[in-house]
Amino acid sequence: MKENKLIKFQELMKKNKIDYYIVPTSDFHSSEIAGAYFQGRKYLSGFTGSAGTLLFGLEKIYLYVDGRYFIQADQQVDLSMITVMKIGQPECIDMIDIFNQDQTKVVGFDGRCVSHKFAASIKNPIVSDIDLIDQVWTDRPELSKEPVYNYSIEYCGQSRKEKLAQIRDKMNAGTHIVTTLDDIAYIFNLRGNDICHTPVFYSYALISKTQAILYLNKDSVSETLKIELEQDGVTIKDYYAIYDDAKTIEGSIQLDTSVVNHQIVSSLEGTVVDCMNPSQLLKAIKNETEISNTRIAHIKDGLAMTKFMHYLKTSIANVAMDELSADEILTGYRQEQPDFKGLSFATICAYEQNAALMHYSATKENHARLEPRGLLLIDSGGQYLQGTIDTTRTFVLGPISDVQKHHFTLVFKAMNNLQQARFLHGKTGVGLDILARGIIQQENLDYQCGTGHGVGHYLSVHEGPHGLRPVKRENDQDSIFEPGMIVTDEPGIYLAGEYGIRLENELLVTKGEKNFYGQFLHFETLTMVPIDLDGINLAMLNDKERKQLCDYHQLVYSNIEYGLNDIEKQWYQETLIAPLLTSLDK
Amino acid sequence: MKENKLIKFQELMKKNKIDYYIVPTSDFHSSEIAGAYFQGRKYLSGFTGSAGTLLFGLEKIYLYVDGRYFIQADQQVDLSMITVMKIGQPECIDMIDIFNQDQTKVVGFDGRCVSHKFAASIKNPIVSDIDLIDQVWTDRPELSKEPVYNYSIEYCGQSRKEKLAQIRDKMNAGTHIVTTLDDIAYIFNLRGNDICHTPVFYSYALISKTQAILYLNKDSVSETLKIELEQDGVTIKDYYAIYDDAKTIEGSIQLDTSVVNHQIVSSLEGTVVDCMNPSQLLKAIKNETEISNTRIAHIKDGLAMTKFMHYLKTSIANVAMDELSADEILTGYRQEQPDFKGLSFATICAYEQNAALMHYSATKENHARLEPRGLLLIDSGGQYLQGTIDTTRTFVLGPISDVQKHHFTLVFKAMNNLQQARFLHGKTGVGLDILARGIIQQENLDYQCGTGHGVGHYLSVHEGPHGLRPVKRENDQDSIFEPGMIVTDEPGIYLAGEYGIRLENELLVTKGEKNFYGQFLHFETLTMVPIDLDGINLAMLNDKERKQLCDYHQLVYSNIEYGLNDIEKQWYQETLIAPLLTSLDK
Repeated sequence: MKENKLIKFQELMKKNKIDYYIVPTSDFHSSEIAGAYFQGRKYLSGFTGSAGTLLFGLEKIYLYVDGRYFIQADQQVDLSMITVMKIGQPECIDMIDIFNQDQTKVVGFDGRCVSHKFAASIKNPIVSDIDLIDQVWTDRPELSKEPVYNYSIEYCGQSRKEKLAQIRDKMNAGTHIVTTLDDIAYIFNLRGNDICHTPVFYSYALISKTQAILYLNKDSVSETLKIELEQDGVTIKDYYAIYDDAKTIEGSIQLDTSVVNHQIVSSLEGTVVDCMNPSQLLKAIKNETEISNTRIAHIKDGLAMTKFMHYLKTSIANVAMDELSADEILTGYRQEQPDFKGLSFATICAYEQNAALMHYSATKENHARLEPRGLLLIDSGGQYLQGTIDTTRTFVLGPISDVQKHHFTLVFKAMNNLQQARFLHGKTGVGLDILARGIIQQENLDYQCGTGHGVGHYLSVHEGPHGLRPVKRENDQDSIFEPGMIVTDEPGIYLAGEYGIRLENELLVTKGEKNFYGQFLHFETLTMVPIDLDGINLAMLNDKERKQLCDYHQLVYSNIEYGLNDIEKQWYQETLIAPLLTSLDK
Repeated sequence: MKENKLIKFQELMKKNKIDYYIVPTSDFHSSEIAGAYFQGRKYLSGFTGSAGTLLFGLEKIYLYVDGRYFIQADQQVDLSMITVMKIGQPECIDMIDIFNQDQTKVVGFDGRCVSHKFAASIKNPIVSDIDLIDQVWTDRPELSKEPVYNYSIEYCGQSRKEKLAQIRDKMNAGTHIVTTLDDIAYIFNLRGNDICHTPVFYSYALISKTQAILYLNKDSVSETLKIELEQDGVTIKDYYAIYDDAKTIEGSIQLDTSVVNHQIVSSLEGTVVDCMNPSQLLKAIKNETEISNTRIAHIKDGLAMTKFMHYLKTSIANVAMDELSADEILTGYRQEQPDFKGLSFATICAYEQNAALMHYSATKENHARLEPRGLLLIDSGGQYLQGTIDTTRTFVLGPISDVQKHHFTLVFKAMNNLQQARFLHGKTGVGLDILARGIIQQENLDYQCGTGHGVGHYLSVHEGPHGLRPVKRENDQDSIFEPGMIVTDEPGIYLAGEYGIRLENELLVTKGEKNFYGQFLHFETLTMVPIDLDGINLAMLNDKERKQLCDYHQLVYSNIEYGLNDIEKQWYQETLIAPLLTSLDK
């Protein structure tokens, strides 16, 4: 069956005089998550991973996958038809190098699913206006068309008119094309439900000094909203109309070629000003309304997490649980919270050695039973009308080794050291990453990822342009930290085959003293979830750290007390505050 | 008198049809220190500071000075003739903007004293081949022509033939022009004495695949050395012959336009490949011989500093001393050390509020008397055949306030926190600076300079391409730390009108464990000078820090004990080790 699709695909290529055809896992908007309509790669190859690129040649077919999926890809694809290219392995040939061997070969792809920057790096002749997937995928799902709704000013704090004025003020060209869905949702104060876990809607936007056009499925917008948008100077057009409109834009056009698709950019006549969307930075710097709402969202999510923690810690010895049921129970606590709109990403609930895999995801077929011993890592968060949450806690389910406790404490010290930072305005993530990572590196350990990322406001759980990485890589934005930015602080220790420990707080960049030296900044911890003290060796903490942890647990308690029952309150006081107070008295 | 020179200069400009003439404080080699021959700016303006640029117009004359010299410049120049431009002040007009007002005006300068990069930024017509200073400065000193000598392989560890092969291997062009004196001294294993505090000699070099030409004053080279150089494939030519030779180079030419002078670059016919000299990185990464010699140099310099510290601390109550005499006494101790060749820079010996000025230099006319109270900052170092030293210690001369002690301890904690760092290969200075600065910034304080810089090996006390800065600035190299690099670690607290505290160790980047995560690096402390415990509030140090300081003082003692007399030994044990041992017992 599989073979038929693949052979049919190659025949279509021949008919269209295409020598290589690229099938990425990507939508028209460079979204982090591609919806069902964009799962052509999965449909054709059988490989179900969240990322991967199929490259059809006329003789060979390659599937490019990253380290997470080396084993899974081998298991799922027909290896007699498809060669799995394992990115980073010595035998992996770069995709571009495969075409480059013969630069007369024609390379095809759906130009809407590939960034212009990537397409421009291909030196071969290109055919980008044929979607071959549509021609083989007969039962392809429709593109999602969920309702688009207004995101109230009480949550976002700034009208779309003001936002449009700000964008126009920062534009370096006559027209600005925006195609990233979180930028559009932010600018227009709209939300939708077209992409799993992220409340955005399929759309494009075109902003000039006089016009603001929103291209989307018109049926998804209510009449009331249409009128409201019109009053704010926003014109609604059909989703696909951008492709014709783009051809007619006069003058200079500002856009980010690393995210805008090739089809749009290649059709432009005017001069392209290639730069980061101005909305990236505006969106990252939360206003006072967004900040106070985010604090509320963290209290709700923290209450759910803490109630779950109580249940988990007190039931594990008596109740049968596994990674999936624990996730369900946690989600249940979140669902009890008002304004909960869903998870902000698929929960990572990973027991013992599963937690050593950074991108582990439990499945019905493959998940671990929880035992009253060892460590359970849970990285999760909710989408609330008030904000987006991303929190990780590692829980001690019973006896753990001294080394596990040592590593758990080290991860706490690392997270805490960064969140206590004070620094002058002007620092980027590369300059601060060592504050967390350095604590882990003191013991010749490391975590092979950044220390943190930006978080959207009732939007994407990952957003730029700032972040925390150890080294600036080419194309990294590594923006300066500005007051109002949110960044996660999530160091970890991952020992393959043994266990994984990660703790993650969300931090808000906050103004401190302004004096002769300049504007000092520090972090406010937004996350409101206690640290499991069963993992902490208090003797490894100095007085300051013990005091900071105790203050934090008391702060969390004062914020979530309203939602705890008497048993939970007693448990919190006895297991999360009393031991710290005792240790401080010594 | 002064006026006559200035008016004569303007008349010469008119005669040569030059509207503006720039007189920088710079030699032909972009050296940090300009010799007597290059003090035209001082001769013409009367301003004696170490940096500053004179700009002659036909009507107005401007002197550009930085913050160190605002007051001094006003005092020293004839303000009726010269306008002092204070760089960074709102009323200061950028020099380039003065020409730019009328781009037909002709700008003149000695093209040998200005980098090509700077000259290329001027949009006006340029006359760069007339040295007007020579025409007014009748008693101009001769260009220094001190003997050039071989720098033995026992100190530098690698032959010039090997170094030339390495340079050739790294060249991106047919010919490479090197004009920076420390690069030339390094590559050719030669030293001289043409520049104060730095054992280099005036020279240029031209390296191709087949040739290595050294342009220098031939009389400065002995016949034996000439033969040796010839045997190593190095041709000697007259110092100024580079200017004619440059015109005849065929093919591509590699050089760094930010340091090579305009006269040379503008005369080239071939394609210029503009990049950092390969010798920069080779020179920065010390080999095993350089490292073991540097350790010896630090022991010698540390012995001198410690003997001085003993004298200072035990005599201050009874012996009259001032900043100048203290400096002389310290230099005396250094002179007792074998292979001492002079100071590596002019000692900063600054008492109390003088130490708050980061670039303070005591003069005969203006220096402070030392009293048996308060803080004395000494930043100094020797040039030894075995290496170049840069050390700062702040000494407690008697009673100090609790706040002073708090700040002294904070500076120690900052320096110590950085020197204890462990990190994976790949980090630059921007990524590590916060480890020192962050400790100071915790208290809303800062020091307005980098945390550290590279140090040459029996060469310049400041060298790149690495360093420790809080933020990457445009044109900063911010190179990755490699094993064998030396970097200073010198945080401080400077309170204007009150006091300044700086502690400075030199650190050697050293390989640690190599494992799954990569190559770990850490620092070896090279400096061998104890910290004045009278400045340390031991209660502010945690157990680890107390142990680290105690270990360091014991290590220093074991290294320098051989040169201490019995009284000094007893003093060291009682005041620098015993208090730490007692605090660890608690």
